[in-house]
Amino acid sequence: MSETRVGIIMGSQSDWPTMKEAADILDELGVAYETRIVSAHRTPDRLWDYGKTAVARGLHVIIAGAGGAAHLPGMMASKTRVPVIGVPVLTRALSGVDSLYSIVQMPKGFPVATMAIGAAGAANAGLMAASILAVSDPDLATRLDDWRAALSASIPEAPGDA
Amino acid sequence: MSETRVGIIMGSQSDWPTMKEAADILDELGVAYETRIVSAHRTPDRLWDYGKTAVARGLHVIIAGAGGAAHLPGMMASKTRVPVIGVPVLTRALSGVDSLYSIVQMPKGFPVATMAIGAAGAANAGLMAASILAVSDPDLATRLDDWRAALSASIPEAPGDA
Amino acid sequence: MSETRVGIIMGSQSDWPTMKEAADILDELGVAYETRIVSAHRTPDRLWDYGKTAVARGLHVIIAGAGGAAHLPGMMASKTRVPVIGVPVLTRALSGVDSLYSIVQMPKGFPVATMAIGAAGAANAGLMAASILAVSDPDLATRLDDWRAALSASIPEAPGDA
Amino acid sequence: MSETRVGIIMGSQSDWPTMKEAADILDELGVAYETRIVSAHRTPDRLWDYGKTAVARGLHVIIAGAGGAAHLPGMMASKTRVPVIGVPVLTRALSGVDSLYSIVQMPKGFPVATMAIGAAGAANAGLMAASILAVSDPDLATRLDDWRAALSASIPEAPGDA
Amino acid sequence: MSETRVGIIMGSQSDWPTMKEAADILDELGVAYETRIVSAHRTPDRLWDYGKTAVARGLHVIIAGAGGAAHLPGMMASKTRVPVIGVPVLTRALSGVDSLYSIVQMPKGFPVATMAIGAAGAANAGLMAASILAVSDPDLATRLDDWRAALSASIPEAPGDA
Amino acid sequence: MSETRVGIIMGSQSDWPTMKEAADILDELGVAYETRIVSAHRTPDRLWDYGKTAVARGLHVIIAGAGGAAHLPGMMASKTRVPVIGVPVLTRALSGVDSLYSIVQMPKGFPVATMAIGAAGAANAGLMAASILAVSDPDLATRLDDWRAALSASIPEAPGDA
Amino acid sequence: MSETRVGIIMGSQSDWPTMKEAADILDELGVAYETRIVSAHRTPDRLWDYGKTAVARGLHVIIAGAGGAAHLPGMMASKTRVPVIGVPVLTRALSGVDSLYSIVQMPKGFPVATMAIGAAGAANAGLMAASILAVSDPDLATRLDDWRAALSASIPEAPGDA
Amino acid sequence: MSETRVGIIMGSQSDWPTMKEAADILDELGVAYETRIVSAHRTPDRLWDYGKTAVARGLHVIIAGAGGAAHLPGMMASKTRVPVIGVPVLTRALSGVDSLYSIVQMPKGFPVATMAIGAAGAANAGLMAASILAVSDPDLATRLDDWRAALSASIPEAPGDA
Repeated sequence: MSETRVGIIMGSQSDWPTMKEAADILDELGVAYETRIVSAHRTPDRLWDYGKTAVARGLHVIIAGAGGAAHLPGMMASKTRVPVIGVPVLTRALSGVDSLYSIVQMPKGFPVATMAIGAAGAANAGLMAASILAVSDPDLATRLDDWRAALSASIPEAPGDA
Repeated sequence: MSETRVGIIMGSQSDWPTMKEAADILDELGVAYETRIVSAHRTPDRLWDYGKTAVARGLHVIIAGAGGAAHLPGMMASKTRVPVIGVPVLTRALSGVDSLYSIVQMPKGFPVATMAIGAAGAANAGLMAASILAVSDPDLATRLDDWRAALSASIPEAPGDA
Repeated sequence: MSETRVGIIMGSQSDWPTMKEAADILDELGVAYETRIVSAHRTPDRLWDYGKTAVARGLHVIIAGAGGAAHLPGMMASKTRVPVIGVPVLTRALSGVDSLYSIVQMPKGFPVATMAIGAAGAANAGLMAASILAVSDPDLATRLDDWRAALSASIPEAPGDA
Repeated sequence: MSETRVGIIMGSQSDWPTMKEAADILDELGVAYETRIVSAHRTPDRLWDYGKTAVARGLHVIIAGAGGAAHLPGMMASKTRVPVIGVPVLTRALSGVDSLYSIVQMPKGFPVATMAIGAAGAANAGLMAASILAVSDPDLATRLDDWRAALSASIPEAPGDA
Repeated sequence: MSETRVGIIMGSQSDWPTMKEAADILDELGVAYETRIVSAHRTPDRLWDYGKTAVARGLHVIIAGAGGAAHLPGMMASKTRVPVIGVPVLTRALSGVDSLYSIVQMPKGFPVATMAIGAAGAANAGLMAASILAVSDPDLATRLDDWRAALSASIPEAPGDA
Repeated sequence: MSETRVGIIMGSQSDWPTMKEAADILDELGVAYETRIVSAHRTPDRLWDYGKTAVARGLHVIIAGAGGAAHLPGMMASKTRVPVIGVPVLTRALSGVDSLYSIVQMPKGFPVATMAIGAAGAANAGLMAASILAVSDPDLATRLDDWRAALSASIPEAPGDA
Repeated sequence: MSETRVGIIMGSQSDWPTMKEAADILDELGVAYETRIVSAHRTPDRLWDYGKTAVARGLHVIIAGAGGAAHLPGMMASKTRVPVIGVPVLTRALSGVDSLYSIVQMPKGFPVATMAIGAAGAANAGLMAASILAVSDPDLATRLDDWRAALSASIPEAPGDA
Repeated sequence: MSETRVGIIMGSQSDWPTMKEAADILDELGVAYETRIVSAHRTPDRLWDYGKTAVARGLHVIIAGAGGAAHLPGMMASKTRVPVIGVPVLTRALSGVDSLYSIVQMPKGFPVATMAIGAAGAANAGLMAASILAVSDPDLATRLDDWRAALSASIPEAPGDA
């Protein structure tokens, strides 16, 4: 694997089962990454440091997952020009609609590339990160093309009973 | 008026017509305040400084208004133990539901005292700030009691046609 | 502990598992409180008495939890100038959105400091009450600062598999 | 007209353009009524008195309209066994969904007969009141039957261009 | 018990566990009732007959429960001037919001007295029916007053741990 | 034009500006139709008759538009096996979500082919009716193919400023 | 059974337990059908081929089920004039509201006959397909009439306890 | 300006006033782009061609805006590994919630980087595209940093009355 170009951050340990889907995709595609817990509210200075040093540390994409009043992705987008991909984690009361709105409805100036709520969104965050890197990494582009082709080829013609 | 104990902050100039309702209430009740634009995303360092110095500067309550992915109230609550009152500003697409969810659904550890969406919520933020100060300010308590009594006394017995 | 300055009230016994989170926080912070069942609809006269005597009895903050058509927090705010913190209890059909709207959408004149839906909101109600009291209680302010610092310090650097 | 058996109450003067639809229907059907502004939050004692004296004053039905955190209908249902019909008034931010949830989601013990949001709901509150009175008032039953028959007869066979 | 003045109808057998709450309340209050399955879509002619004969059969109130595209209460209101109380039954996909909107949003002319979603709403439908009958039945009014007083008296002062 | 095989019905005159979109499409495609106001609540017997005679009268498709608690399409589907296409008309308070849920959430046994809310849905109802008739009408199939081809051909390559 | 006139397609194997309800209904009514997995995103070329050959292959109706960002029904409607019936499959986070909106809110030109969310909707898709074929198939029309009559006849007069 | 690396596509001419915000940002940042109308439903073959040739034509990012059942961004993501940024266009009935859900809730395999509803989202799509290109374009990175710094510097300290 190459140097770490992707950071996967999340608001709390409880987000990890969801966010691990992003890590798994990056493992499949041979993209190096780091994982960190960065809580916007509980560790705001950690968020600050992570954002301020992201470019210098060579990060090309940041994947950020959070639930409820999910401020992590948007605040990270405020602190760095590195593209931030946001994953709304499923919540108990509002089924992740609160997470989704808190992440996607960013004001002009600070986009967050928002994915679907929950595990599918986390996996897609890994794929989106890979597609961004693939813009300037032909080998990764080939691996991503293969991954996509394999997914398509795996679909049976007709449904089967269990 | 006494020294400034209330800070009214907002994410952008466009929030001022709403947040002015809070200022007007504080004027009516003789509570000194300051007003600042503190954008969570555009001026995050200003947010940091405001939060870190709030106690030392003698602020007792912070009123924070924002719309959309409204991160200002919650991030301020992360940076200071001064009570933060949040006002969800009405948005065009989602009628302030995005603002409301982004402000109210805070995780354990960092409460935001959330008000109603829009102008009524901003006015109530002023009243809530006053009621917090009134806990240790008997004169203000009296003025607040009078304000409430006058409001009740102003209601006519029966509706009238225009 | 000091004298009782916080009242925790709730609409029914079934709200207690949620509201106990507020009590637990106050226990951790050494803030004395009382707990009462005050049903807006089933015991309206109890609500009246509680509200009318709150100031005289020395209450500085009231935490009120309720679900569905949750009228308790708002009606209490109508009867006393003591700051009222509202906790929307999770409901079966509407996931607490009914509770949230019934509590937060108060008209001008009677603010309720609304917290998140469910257990996180109840815990935060305890913290919000403490932060209000801390405005004029330096010892509590120190304990609250310590509680917040300990929460931040408890966050690991990276997520771990179970 | 007969003695006043219906009370039309509302939270504020601003609800009157909506609630006048109820009054107009009762006028058409020859049912006497009174109109009052009874604000749950601004005039809670007025609400108390109105509820406590409703039976003795001979009221058979109460129509209550309110918007936002609309506590009036439910609190009135708590204070009297006289049937309460609730009208959710249209609000700016949440289009009356907050009003609807605050009125309809009453706990076991205190029903509110909830109507549609806005003007159609207010008119229907008048009709529902009449249908309740008609249970023991054959003349009114006949007038109500006629009103319904006239409504049905007024519908043209096919739509016409303006 | 007296003659049957209340009809409890529902769209399908699956609604009975919910609607039984209405029957139980009427049993407690000594109000005679009948129960019928009347499906708006599967047995429309039964709905027609039930509605057309309701007055002649001496029914004073009809309680109608249904879920999803819940047309039974509104169609019954179209066929008879007997007051119709609607109960939105909880659905799997939309948690009864579809049922609620289909019942409550009736056009001018045909009110349905809508209750809360699910079991609480069904119990309240029984109480609302009783309160309507109590308008002209002093003995039932006394029993209803007693039921309400007993409910209020049953509320403990403070919450208890299980 | 051929004999009338499509019935366009609507709950009230106020639905006509929306439903006229369906008529216009059928005119373009050379499909004969009739238009009727059939109110589920105000003219239930007219609904009954229309449904019972639909097959005998040679109707092959019924387009039904309604708003709010929109019972017309579903009740018509209950009375005839002729395919019913439902159009949710835009409402003021709930933007047609009430209409949509009332139409689409039909129980097993009585499908309604639901279209988009408002004018686009009404136009599409006309196209859906045509596509159903085209199954056994090759000439209409050709005209429909042409209509679709013309629509596609009308799309410019790039957007233009006004 | 006759030749295959109905195609049941779905976005993934996981949709089959829902979509099998459509197949079961067609089995009951003696309508031949085929089942295919056609993923809009994973097998777009399969979607293209299926749509382009639908008319030539003799398909008269296509039933398409999908969940989340459910693009299959609408894209199929874009590729063929054969009537497309859409079934919104229940999703975890948003309970199928995302599926419903993605299917029903089609722009002018490309209608999808949308059914209820989940299993009831899938069964109804089978019935709707049958009703469309019955327009030109008198034997099927009789079988459909019988199916509907049997459903109505199966409803008991009154609810029974389990 | 450099060669065209960004494609801005939209479902119809009516989306252009919104999507022009993306073009304006790219103009400000000196990023070359092309604009095309590509309707998923009206010009599906154009969508196919655009997707299939995107890599070969040198596109590095595609910005896709659509409203209602907004299938364009997701279908484009199905046809190319070039990163797709989705912009939910505001709709009349559902305020863009339908657009948002149709774009963001993509299944595993095909991410769409979803932006806020409406104009702010379109502007942010331009910024997100620039941040993706900036990963391997230091000059653009500098211009983007400058743009962000200028935005922050433009915020006044305090709100001003108009």
